[in-house]
Amino acid sequence: MNEWLNNPIQEIDQSYYDLASSHQAQLTKPPGSLGTLEELAIKFCVWQKNISPSITNPVIAIFAADHGIANENVSAFPQAVTTEMIRNFANGGAAISVIANSLKIPLHVIDMGTVVQAEKLDGVTQNRIASGTKNFAVESAMSLEECYQALSVGEQLIMQEKANSLDVFIGGEMGIANTSSASAISSVLLNLPATKLTGSGTGLDADATKHKANIIQTAIEFHQPNFINDAGNIDAIKVLQTVGGFEIAALVGAYLACAQQGIPILVDGFICSVAALVTTRIAPNAINWMCFTHESVEPGHKIVLDALSVTPVLNLNMRLGEASGAALSIATIKLALDLHNNMATFEQAAVSHQI
Amino acid sequence: MNEWLNNPIQEIDQSYYDLASSHQAQLTKPPGSLGTLEELAIKFCVWQKNISPSITNPVIAIFAADHGIANENVSAFPQAVTTEMIRNFANGGAAISVIANSLKIPLHVIDMGTVVQAEKLDGVTQNRIASGTKNFAVESAMSLEECYQALSVGEQLIMQEKANSLDVFIGGEMGIANTSSASAISSVLLNLPATKLTGSGTGLDADATKHKANIIQTAIEFHQPNFINDAGNIDAIKVLQTVGGFEIAALVGAYLACAQQGIPILVDGFICSVAALVTTRIAPNAINWMCFTHESVEPGHKIVLDALSVTPVLNLNMRLGEASGAALSIATIKLALDLHNNMATFEQAAVSHQI
Repeated sequence: MNEWLNNPIQEIDQSYYDLASSHQAQLTKPPGSLGTLEELAIKFCVWQKNISPSITNPVIAIFAADHGIANENVSAFPQAVTTEMIRNFANGGAAISVIANSLKIPLHVIDMGTVVQAEKLDGVTQNRIASGTKNFAVESAMSLEECYQALSVGEQLIMQEKANSLDVFIGGEMGIANTSSASAISSVLLNLPATKLTGSGTGLDADATKHKANIIQTAIEFHQPNFINDAGNIDAIKVLQTVGGFEIAALVGAYLACAQQGIPILVDGFICSVAALVTTRIAPNAINWMCFTHESVEPGHKIVLDALSVTPVLNLNMRLGEASGAALSIATIKLALDLHNNMATFEQAAVSHQI
Repeated sequence: MNEWLNNPIQEIDQSYYDLASSHQAQLTKPPGSLGTLEELAIKFCVWQKNISPSITNPVIAIFAADHGIANENVSAFPQAVTTEMIRNFANGGAAISVIANSLKIPLHVIDMGTVVQAEKLDGVTQNRIASGTKNFAVESAMSLEECYQALSVGEQLIMQEKANSLDVFIGGEMGIANTSSASAISSVLLNLPATKLTGSGTGLDADATKHKANIIQTAIEFHQPNFINDAGNIDAIKVLQTVGGFEIAALVGAYLACAQQGIPILVDGFICSVAALVTTRIAPNAINWMCFTHESVEPGHKIVLDALSVTPVLNLNMRLGEASGAALSIATIKLALDLHNNMATFEQAAVSHQI
């Protein structure tokens, strides 16, 4: 069930970079004066192999799961909230529901395994691996088989949506205590102390954040041998299995499948960026298919973005997750494409060139 | 014709700040996790005295004019471009035309006085003060009467649009060499050397930027006595008259009228922010009605924003002007209002509160 992980990443056709850049240089504006908007438009030209790119079938998918590490008092909210928020997504009351509705983007919610199983809900698919992960302070979060299963849920969603002409993938996550998992994964992969990558999550105070960092640091020291593969290197899949979460693994699977299938990815905040980091450790070129959409207030996010050498599009001081930042960035990205496609050239408008 | 300048600024009803903040705290998200989006929604609640704010009648107005200082080789583009771009605005080919069209916002273009007068064009109003300002390297850019006339054009536009239920004003500018005017105004008002506030504008190289800064510095030293009023203080109107531009004065008039009438203002980049700075020197409380939408690459912009103690919403490395940054920010602002208005509360969604 895991052979697909080794499928090749779709190659980027750099000739479209030159074509798109040359078109941008002809538009009636000082060269480069649309800044990030020009870069976004050029990215989409390359991704779509089309100098008039458009976004017509974006999809948002929120993967939700519970985390055993929640038992260690690492979150400001009770664990019941994961399931309560699944209902809120389905009923249209969550932030991502409102954004999806305003921008008319389909929203899929995937229950990857919560402690309390939600009733059947419209728009929610049940792909439950288990009733939450195990507490990684004392044991591996999941078995290797469960990890492959979770990765596969993400991949399957992409293959199914690809059949529906998916042209931009927006992944998101919900899971009480999942910043602890993201901090643990990134600490191990970046070889940095947990304190650097641990923040207040949904709203811990300074003491509680310190406690959370201690729990994570102790856990990653305890598990250290489990992260290493036969060749003696850190193995991203083993890290995901040991301190990850079902929803994070599903995001990794989805990102990897997008990069294999040539589908652009809008990466959300800290947890999604950690999933992106894991993805690039499995397949480095996967980063070619990612656009990092915003910088979260969660302090680990900047470190992960820097490690990936990427600059996000927006900084709105958000720290919500649920794909909210990525989804809202699409309003700006669509305007970037409209400008690229619809502005007049100097010649068309009879506007004089630079002196 | 200038008594209106002293009309009182509309007061802010701070009780709506508390009402809106309290509503935000009940929405199903960790407190503060929507960051800037929460602040934007709260601002609009206060401005509209309504805890369910909406934007239904925004208007974009681009004021265009030529500048005598262009004779000093301070721009990378020839002066003919001002008139050529007026045609481009009217024909839908400019960046702001594309954004206005995509977001369905009416776009007004006002010819305040170009060297070459454009033919009659749909959507372009002629309010020409003169065929461009005079070269402020050698004489005052305009007479005091011309300055009042230009201020009044901005005010009249707001009064006319207010009658059409204008609820958000987006001002913009076009005018070859107008960053020189903006740098000169801000240097004088902030008492900083011109080098600090002078950038490459539409695309000067380092040497040409240095030349531009020298021209501006020499001019403001030459005019220094003209900036001082009878009380011995720097007078913002005199500064505007001496080194300003017709389109910058019109923006000041429009911003001041908005603040007097209680109409929120989305401030664009460097030149518009300098107009905002002038406005606050005429009426300090006018800043209560302004939202600074993006940070330009033009280095003076950050200095002006800091002087006004404001943080812009976006940073997309833009430096185009034409209200392009302000207009595109409305897509994000509208989502902020949708979130505020349409998210479920913890009680409505039966989601557990913070521990």
